[in-house]
Amino acid sequence: MLSLSVLYAFLFLYSGQLLFGLLLAETESRSVKKYTPNWDSLDARPLPSWYDESKFGIFIHWGVFSVPSFNNEWFWWQWKGTKPVQKVVNFMKQNYDPNFLYADFGPQFTAEFYNATEWADVFKASGAKYIVFTSKHHEGFTNWPSKHSWNWNSMDVGPKRDLIGELATAIRANTDIHFGLYHSRFEWFHPLYLEDKKNGFKTNTFVEQVSQPELHEIVTAYKPEVVWSDGDQEAPDTYWNSTGFLAWLYNDSPVKNNVVTNDRWGKGCRNHHGGYYTGHDRYNPGTLQKHKWENCMTIDKRSWGYRREAPLADYLTMDDITQILAETVSCGGNLLMNVGPTHDGRIVPIFEERLRQMGSWMEVNGEAIYKSKPWRAQNDTMTKGIWYTSKDNATSVYAIVLDWPSNNQISLGVPTTSSQTTITMLGNQGNLQWKAGAGGAGVVVTLPAMRPCDWAWVLKLQHVK
Amino acid sequence: MLSLSVLYAFLFLYSGQLLFGLLLAETESRSVKKYTPNWDSLDARPLPSWYDESKFGIFIHWGVFSVPSFNNEWFWWQWKGTKPVQKVVNFMKQNYDPNFLYADFGPQFTAEFYNATEWADVFKASGAKYIVFTSKHHEGFTNWPSKHSWNWNSMDVGPKRDLIGELATAIRANTDIHFGLYHSRFEWFHPLYLEDKKNGFKTNTFVEQVSQPELHEIVTAYKPEVVWSDGDQEAPDTYWNSTGFLAWLYNDSPVKNNVVTNDRWGKGCRNHHGGYYTGHDRYNPGTLQKHKWENCMTIDKRSWGYRREAPLADYLTMDDITQILAETVSCGGNLLMNVGPTHDGRIVPIFEERLRQMGSWMEVNGEAIYKSKPWRAQNDTMTKGIWYTSKDNATSVYAIVLDWPSNNQISLGVPTTSSQTTITMLGNQGNLQWKAGAGGAGVVVTLPAMRPCDWAWVLKLQHVK
Amino acid sequence: MLSLSVLYAFLFLYSGQLLFGLLLAETESRSVKKYTPNWDSLDARPLPSWYDESKFGIFIHWGVFSVPSFNNEWFWWQWKGTKPVQKVVNFMKQNYDPNFLYADFGPQFTAEFYNATEWADVFKASGAKYIVFTSKHHEGFTNWPSKHSWNWNSMDVGPKRDLIGELATAIRANTDIHFGLYHSRFEWFHPLYLEDKKNGFKTNTFVEQVSQPELHEIVTAYKPEVVWSDGDQEAPDTYWNSTGFLAWLYNDSPVKNNVVTNDRWGKGCRNHHGGYYTGHDRYNPGTLQKHKWENCMTIDKRSWGYRREAPLADYLTMDDITQILAETVSCGGNLLMNVGPTHDGRIVPIFEERLRQMGSWMEVNGEAIYKSKPWRAQNDTMTKGIWYTSKDNATSVYAIVLDWPSNNQISLGVPTTSSQTTITMLGNQGNLQWKAGAGGAGVVVTLPAMRPCDWAWVLKLQHVK
Amino acid sequence: MLSLSVLYAFLFLYSGQLLFGLLLAETESRSVKKYTPNWDSLDARPLPSWYDESKFGIFIHWGVFSVPSFNNEWFWWQWKGTKPVQKVVNFMKQNYDPNFLYADFGPQFTAEFYNATEWADVFKASGAKYIVFTSKHHEGFTNWPSKHSWNWNSMDVGPKRDLIGELATAIRANTDIHFGLYHSRFEWFHPLYLEDKKNGFKTNTFVEQVSQPELHEIVTAYKPEVVWSDGDQEAPDTYWNSTGFLAWLYNDSPVKNNVVTNDRWGKGCRNHHGGYYTGHDRYNPGTLQKHKWENCMTIDKRSWGYRREAPLADYLTMDDITQILAETVSCGGNLLMNVGPTHDGRIVPIFEERLRQMGSWMEVNGEAIYKSKPWRAQNDTMTKGIWYTSKDNATSVYAIVLDWPSNNQISLGVPTTSSQTTITMLGNQGNLQWKAGAGGAGVVVTLPAMRPCDWAWVLKLQHVK
Repeated sequence: MLSLSVLYAFLFLYSGQLLFGLLLAETESRSVKKYTPNWDSLDARPLPSWYDESKFGIFIHWGVFSVPSFNNEWFWWQWKGTKPVQKVVNFMKQNYDPNFLYADFGPQFTAEFYNATEWADVFKASGAKYIVFTSKHHEGFTNWPSKHSWNWNSMDVGPKRDLIGELATAIRANTDIHFGLYHSRFEWFHPLYLEDKKNGFKTNTFVEQVSQPELHEIVTAYKPEVVWSDGDQEAPDTYWNSTGFLAWLYNDSPVKNNVVTNDRWGKGCRNHHGGYYTGHDRYNPGTLQKHKWENCMTIDKRSWGYRREAPLADYLTMDDITQILAETVSCGGNLLMNVGPTHDGRIVPIFEERLRQMGSWMEVNGEAIYKSKPWRAQNDTMTKGIWYTSKDNATSVYAIVLDWPSNNQISLGVPTTSSQTTITMLGNQGNLQWKAGAGGAGVVVTLPAMRPCDWAWVLKLQHVK
Repeated sequence: MLSLSVLYAFLFLYSGQLLFGLLLAETESRSVKKYTPNWDSLDARPLPSWYDESKFGIFIHWGVFSVPSFNNEWFWWQWKGTKPVQKVVNFMKQNYDPNFLYADFGPQFTAEFYNATEWADVFKASGAKYIVFTSKHHEGFTNWPSKHSWNWNSMDVGPKRDLIGELATAIRANTDIHFGLYHSRFEWFHPLYLEDKKNGFKTNTFVEQVSQPELHEIVTAYKPEVVWSDGDQEAPDTYWNSTGFLAWLYNDSPVKNNVVTNDRWGKGCRNHHGGYYTGHDRYNPGTLQKHKWENCMTIDKRSWGYRREAPLADYLTMDDITQILAETVSCGGNLLMNVGPTHDGRIVPIFEERLRQMGSWMEVNGEAIYKSKPWRAQNDTMTKGIWYTSKDNATSVYAIVLDWPSNNQISLGVPTTSSQTTITMLGNQGNLQWKAGAGGAGVVVTLPAMRPCDWAWVLKLQHVK
Repeated sequence: MLSLSVLYAFLFLYSGQLLFGLLLAETESRSVKKYTPNWDSLDARPLPSWYDESKFGIFIHWGVFSVPSFNNEWFWWQWKGTKPVQKVVNFMKQNYDPNFLYADFGPQFTAEFYNATEWADVFKASGAKYIVFTSKHHEGFTNWPSKHSWNWNSMDVGPKRDLIGELATAIRANTDIHFGLYHSRFEWFHPLYLEDKKNGFKTNTFVEQVSQPELHEIVTAYKPEVVWSDGDQEAPDTYWNSTGFLAWLYNDSPVKNNVVTNDRWGKGCRNHHGGYYTGHDRYNPGTLQKHKWENCMTIDKRSWGYRREAPLADYLTMDDITQILAETVSCGGNLLMNVGPTHDGRIVPIFEERLRQMGSWMEVNGEAIYKSKPWRAQNDTMTKGIWYTSKDNATSVYAIVLDWPSNNQISLGVPTTSSQTTITMLGNQGNLQWKAGAGGAGVVVTLPAMRPCDWAWVLKLQHVK
Repeated sequence: MLSLSVLYAFLFLYSGQLLFGLLLAETESRSVKKYTPNWDSLDARPLPSWYDESKFGIFIHWGVFSVPSFNNEWFWWQWKGTKPVQKVVNFMKQNYDPNFLYADFGPQFTAEFYNATEWADVFKASGAKYIVFTSKHHEGFTNWPSKHSWNWNSMDVGPKRDLIGELATAIRANTDIHFGLYHSRFEWFHPLYLEDKKNGFKTNTFVEQVSQPELHEIVTAYKPEVVWSDGDQEAPDTYWNSTGFLAWLYNDSPVKNNVVTNDRWGKGCRNHHGGYYTGHDRYNPGTLQKHKWENCMTIDKRSWGYRREAPLADYLTMDDITQILAETVSCGGNLLMNVGPTHDGRIVPIFEERLRQMGSWMEVNGEAIYKSKPWRAQNDTMTKGIWYTSKDNATSVYAIVLDWPSNNQISLGVPTTSSQTTITMLGNQGNLQWKAGAGGAGVVVTLPAMRPCDWAWVLKLQHVK
C-alpha cells in the first residue's frame, strides 16, 4: 500500500496526460483496490486531470419546458407546485384551454430543427472543452429512450429521437470536446418520489425503480465523462444511494477512468462530497478555493431553459462573460456556461453569437485560460478589474484586464519585476514598454495602439514574482 | 381438514346460490384457513353467487385507442407492431404528420362529455347487473392516476380525471350494478415487459414494478367485484405471479368476499384455472359447460374500442343480440356485452339504443334470464331457434323463441306435458292454448295475437318435464 | 311555331345531354316567353312535376359548425352574437383557450371519412327522391371552392376538397336522386353584410360581391335541381335582388327547366312568393294547403347540425317519423328530413339506421306516398292517427294507420264503401275482411295476423268514395 | 386667393387636429390645384421633406408566413406555386400531415407576446425615423380587420387583434417615428386575381372588390405617412388604377399633406413613377441618383419574414450594416432595414441587438446622417471604404470611415483643405492632427487613440472644398 500512495502522490503532481503513469495507476488501482461506498473512500479519488485543464464548458438545458419556454425551466412547478407563480399561472390561463396539462406539451416538443452536428460545430467554435447536457430535468422527461420513463421520454413522445445519443455521436465525431450529462435526482411530481417523501424518505421505491436504473442506463449507453447530479437537496445521500452509485461509477462503469462528478449527491453534500464542488447555481466565490470547483451560470441571466420573452437586456454581454470567466478561472474554478435550445431544436442566434464571440476571444487569449493554474494572487491590488492566472510553475503570469485604460497605461500592484521581466499582450506582436514600481513592487505597462480583441485583454508577464 | 374438504365438495355440487352454505364457507375460510398461492387451493374457492345470478353485464373499452378510433383497439400494435396492418399504416400516413407518435394521441383523449352518472343511467336501463371497465388496455395507459404509470394515465395526460373513480362512484350511487375492472397484464411496448420477454420471462421486473403494483392499486382504491384479467397469453402464470395475487385478493383484499375473477392468468390457464372461464373472445360453446363461463362479445362486431368508420351493418341487431343471449344463458354462461365510448366521453346513440332495447326486452323477459339455471336441454330438438332456461328446480321452464312462426303456432320437441301443464308468454296475460305431442312428448303452442316485445319471445312452461 | 322548331334544332346542337323530345315537350308547355324579374311573373311558373311526385327528401347540414358540434349549427352566433347563450359560452370557456376564434375551427373540419359514394348509397336506401345539401350556412363557409369566399371555403381550409362537387357526382353516378343545394343569403358576421345592414339595406355591397356571385357559381357549377334559399329574413327581397336571380335561374341558367325553389327570398316572401312554400322550420300545418309546401325537419329534434351531446331520446323514433310523414304527405306537403354529418365526414349509425328504416318502410308502403295526391279528407274522423292519400283520381285511397289496434280491428269514418270495394294492406297478400258502417258510411276492417312492417301500416281501399 | 382663405377656414372648422398655420403654409406651397390621375401630374408632386431628412427607417414583415417561418416569406408560393421549391415541399412533407393547408397556419399565428409598446421602444432606440409595416403581404392575410378579407385577417383568425392599429397607436404615443404601411397589390392565390390575370387583366374584379377598398381602408383608418406599394409587377398600373388611387391619396385622403409613396404602381413604374424610387429589393446603386430613392434590405440576408433556421452567419454584422448605410446615404438614398417578428410576436434578441447597436452608432454619428445631403463626391478616390455626406451647403463634410487604419492614419483623396480647415471625429473631443496633401489636394488625418464607437467612424471636415 505504501508504494501505491507514493504513486498517487506522483500522479497528483503531474496529473492527467502522462500516459505511462496513468495507465500504471489504473491497472494498479483496478487490480489492487476498489473504492468503497463511503465518502472517505470516494472523496479520495483524484479528479481526472482533463477536467481542471478544460476550464470552460457549455451547459445545455433542453426538455419539455422548452415548449412553453416561458419564465424558466421550473415552469411546471411554478404553475402547479405548492407556491404557484402568478405570472406563470396567468400565462397558462391566457393561452391554453383550462384542461391543458403539462404532459400535453410533450407532443409539441418537436425538435424538427435539431441537428447535433451543427450544435457540435457551434460548441467547438466557442472554445469549450466539455459540455453537460440535461439527460433529464426535474420534470422527469428523459431525453433518451429510458426503460424507466415509458411514454415520458424523447423517443415515445414528441421528438421521436434519442436526443442524447445524437449529440454524443456528433460531439465525438466532430470535436475533442468531453461529453457530459446532467441528471436530476428528484422529480417534482413523480408519484413514487412523492410517496417516498411522504414517508420521510424511509422508503426508496423511486430510487430503486427510477433514479438508479436511469443513471445506470445513461452511463452505460452514453459513457459520459461528466455526471452532473442535481435535485438532491430534499433527501440525504443515503436515500439516493449516492455512494453506492459512485462506487460503481468509479470501480466498474465504462467511464471509471475519466469520469468526473460534482457534489450534488444529497442534502449536505454540496461543497463537501463527491467530485468538484458547485455550491449553488452561479457559484462564484471570488477567492481561491482549496477544492476544485465550477461556476455554472447562464447567458440568459434569468433562466436555464429557453425563454421566449427574454429581451436583449437579459442576455449577458461579452463584457459580462469575460469578467465572469476571469474571476472564475483565477480563483481555481471552471466556467460552465448555459444555453437553452428551443422546442424545435435551435440554438438561437444570440446564443450562437455569444458562443462564437467566446471562441474568438479564446483563440487570442486561450493561453491564459486552458491548463492554467491560479497564481499567488487572484486579482490585482492596485487596479480593479484585473485577474491573474499562471502557467509553468508561475514562470508565466497572465493578467486579464477587463477595462482598457483611457490613457493606454495600466498599473499592476502585485507583480514584482526584475531585469529579466518581459511583458506582452496576447494576440499582439512584440514586447510592451513597462517600468517597475518603486522598489520593483508593481509595474506600469503601456498598452499597444491596436487591440487584438474586443473585450478583456491579457498581459503575459514572464520572469515576475 | 377433512370436514372442510367435505364442505367444499358439497359446495361444488350446488355451487353458488345456496346462501347458507356460502356464508358458512366464507366464515370458515376466513376464520380457519386462508387460500394458498397455488391453483389447487385457489380453484377450490366457490364463485360468489351474485355473479351467476346476474347473467348479463356490460363491458366498456375506453382508452387512448378511442382517439384514433379506427379499425380497433389494437390500433397501436397494428401500426407499429411486428406485423403492421396496411389499413392502419395508411390511415396514419394520410392523416398525420410523419413524426406523430401514439403517445401524441394522449392529449387528444379529452373526455369533455364524460358524465359517469349518465353512463350509469344507461347501464341501469339496459338491465345489466354488472359492468367491467378497462382500467388499462394493452397500450398501458391507465384510466386512473396510477403511481406506476406516470404521465401515461388519465390524470396526467388528456382527461385530467380519474375515469375509474368517477364511474365507480356513479354506479354505486345510482344503481345496484356490480362494478368490475378489466386489467391487461402485458403491454405491447412497455420496455420493461419487452426486456423480460427477451429474457424468456426469467426476469420479472415488469411484473414487480408495474403489473402487480397496479393490480393492488385498483383493487384497494376501487374495490372491484370483478377482476377481469387479460393479456396473459405470452407468459406463464408464474411470471405474472398470478397465484400470489389471487391469494391476496381472496384472503386479504377489501373485496375478498365478493370478488369474482376470470381465467386469464397465464399461458394455459384459460378454461383451466381462476374464477369463471372465458376461453377466447366471443366464446359461445353452444353446449352446457361444467364450469361457470362468460361470453364476452361486442355490439360493434369488429371492435371493442369505438370505431368511427363502422357502418350500421357492423352493429349487431337486437335479433342478433337476443339470440346470443339465449344461447349463452341456456348453456350456463353469462353475457358480457361491450360498448366503446368515444374519445370525448360519449356512448353514442346506436349503443345507447341497443342497451335500452336490451333493457326493454329484459323488463318483459328478465324472469327467464336473471337467476335462471340451465335446463336439462339447452335448445329444442324439433324447432330451431328455441333455447331453454329454468327456475325453481325446473318447476318452471322457459323457452326463448327467436323467430315468430308465420302461422302463430310453435312446436316444442323437448318438454313433456301433463294435465297440470300451463303455458304462458312473458309479458302477455292469460294462458296460451296448447296441445301435447304424441304420447305427451312435445307440445304445440298457439301464440297470442299481440306481441309483448319486438324480438325473441319467451314461453313459460309450468309443470312440464 | 315554325321559328320555334328552328330554335329547338339550334338548341339541340348545343345541348348534347338532353333528349330532343323532352326539350320539346317542356318548352312547348312553358311557352316561349321569358320570366320577368317581378313576383307576378315568377310566381306564375309551374313547379316542375318531379318535385311533388318525390314527396320525401333528405336535408344535410354540414359545415364548420360540425367541428364543435355542440348545441346546434347556430353555435357561432350563440357564442359571439348579440345574445350569447350561456351554455355555448361556457362550452368554449371550458374547452378552448381564451383566444380561440370560430375561424380557428376551420382546420379541424377534416372530413377524412367523407365518402360521397357511401352517402349516396345510404340516401338511396332511404327511399328519398331528392337531397338538399348546405352549400353555405350562416357562418359563410362555402362547401365549394368559391372565388368569393377565399380562405373560408372547403378547398382552402380544412377538408381541402370540393364537398359539393363530390356529392353531386356520387349522387348522379349512383342514384336517381335529384340533387339540390341550400344557400344562406345572410352571414351573421360578414362585415360587408353588417355594413349594408347598418345602412338600412340601402347599400348592397354584400349582395353584389358575395351573395349573388356565389349563387351563380353554384348553379353553374353543380346544376342543382333545388335552390333552397334561407337567411333572407332581415332584408327585403329587393336588397337581395331575388327576382333578378330567379329570372336568370328560370330563363337562362343550366337548370331552368327542372329547378325548383322555395320561398325564402326576402322579408315577407315566405308562404307568398317563389316556388314551394316552407313557412318556418318544421312547418307542418295539419290541413290541406292550396300551394305546394315542404316540411323541413330534423331527426335530431334539437339541431340541424351534428350535435355530439344528443342522447338517444333526442332522436326521433320511426313512430315519430312515420307519423310526421303521413301528416305531411296527406296535407299536400313534401318531407325534407335532416341529418347532420360529423366534422370527419360520417353519417353516424343512428342516422343511418333511421334512413334505412325509412327505406324499408317505403319499400312496403311507398305506393301510398310517391306520386300520391291528397284525398278529399286528410285524416280520419272516427279513429285518431289515420291519414289519407290517394292515386289515380282517387280510385285508390290509402289510409296510413299509425297505431295497430289491440283487437286487430280498425274503424274508418270517412270512406264510403260499395259492393265493389276491396281493401288490402300494403305488403300483405290477399284482401282483408271488412264491413261497412251504417248506411255505407265508414268501414270496419279486420287486420291480418302478420304485420308487413314495424311501424305505420297502410290500408289500400279501392272503389270507395 | 380670397376664395382659398374661405376654403381653409371651412376646413379648419372640420379639422380639429391640424394647426391652422401648418395647413396654410403647406397648401400655399403646394398651390391650389388638385392632382389629376395621370403620371405627369402625380410625379410632379414634391416629396414631403420629412422623408429625405429621415434617412433611416425600419421595415417589418409579419404575417401568416411567420408561422412556418421557414425559408422565407414566399413560403406559400414556394410550396404550392407553379415552380415548387423542393426544400419547402420537403419541409411540409416531413412536418405536417398531407392534408395540411396554408390557411391552416392561420390559427397558429398567435401573437401572444406581441407588445407594440415594446416594439416602439426598440425602434426608437435604433435611431430610425420611420417604419413601414406589412399591412398585407402576397398571401393576402390582412393585419387589420379588413371588411374585404373576411376570415383571413388578424381579427378573425389567429391573433384576434388589430395588429396595425396597436402598432400605430404605440408608435405615435411613444415616439416621433413616422408610421408607414406596406401593401401588396397582388395575391398569389386570390381566385379573383387569378381570374383577372387569366383574362389578360382586362377585367379588374380583384382591384375593385379587394385591392382598392383595402387601400382606402388602411389609409383612412391608420393614416400612414408612407404607402409602400408592392406586388405590382404582373399588371399595368391601369389595371391597378394606381393613378386614381394616388390622386385620391394626394388630394383628398387624411394624409394628403405628409404621405410619401414609392414607385411600385404597375409594370414599368419602378424607377419611373410615383414617389421615391426603390428599383428592386436591396437596391443600392453606389452612385448619386437624380431622384430620391430607398434601399430596402434585410438584416437576415436571405429573408424578409422570420426564418427559424437562419444561423448567425446569415445575419448582417454591424460592419456590414454601417457600410450599407454609408453607401446608401452618400448616394442620396434612404435605408429601410427589415426585421421579421416571430409568429408569437417577438423581435428576437439578435434583431434587437442590431437595432440597438444601430442606435448606439447613430447617437455618436447621427449628425452625419440625418438631414444630411450628398456631397460632390460620394466615396473617396484614394482610400477604399470612405463615404461622404455634407451639411449646410457643404460647409461641413462628413467622411464615414469603414475600416480603422492599422497605423492610425488615414488619407483622404477628395477634400481640398485650407488654413481654416478643422477636422474632428464625431464622438471625440478636440481637433485632430492633419496635414494637407501635395498642393492642398487631399489630406492625411491622424486618428485619436480612443474610438468613440465600435464600427465605422466619422470625420467631420469643416472648411474644405
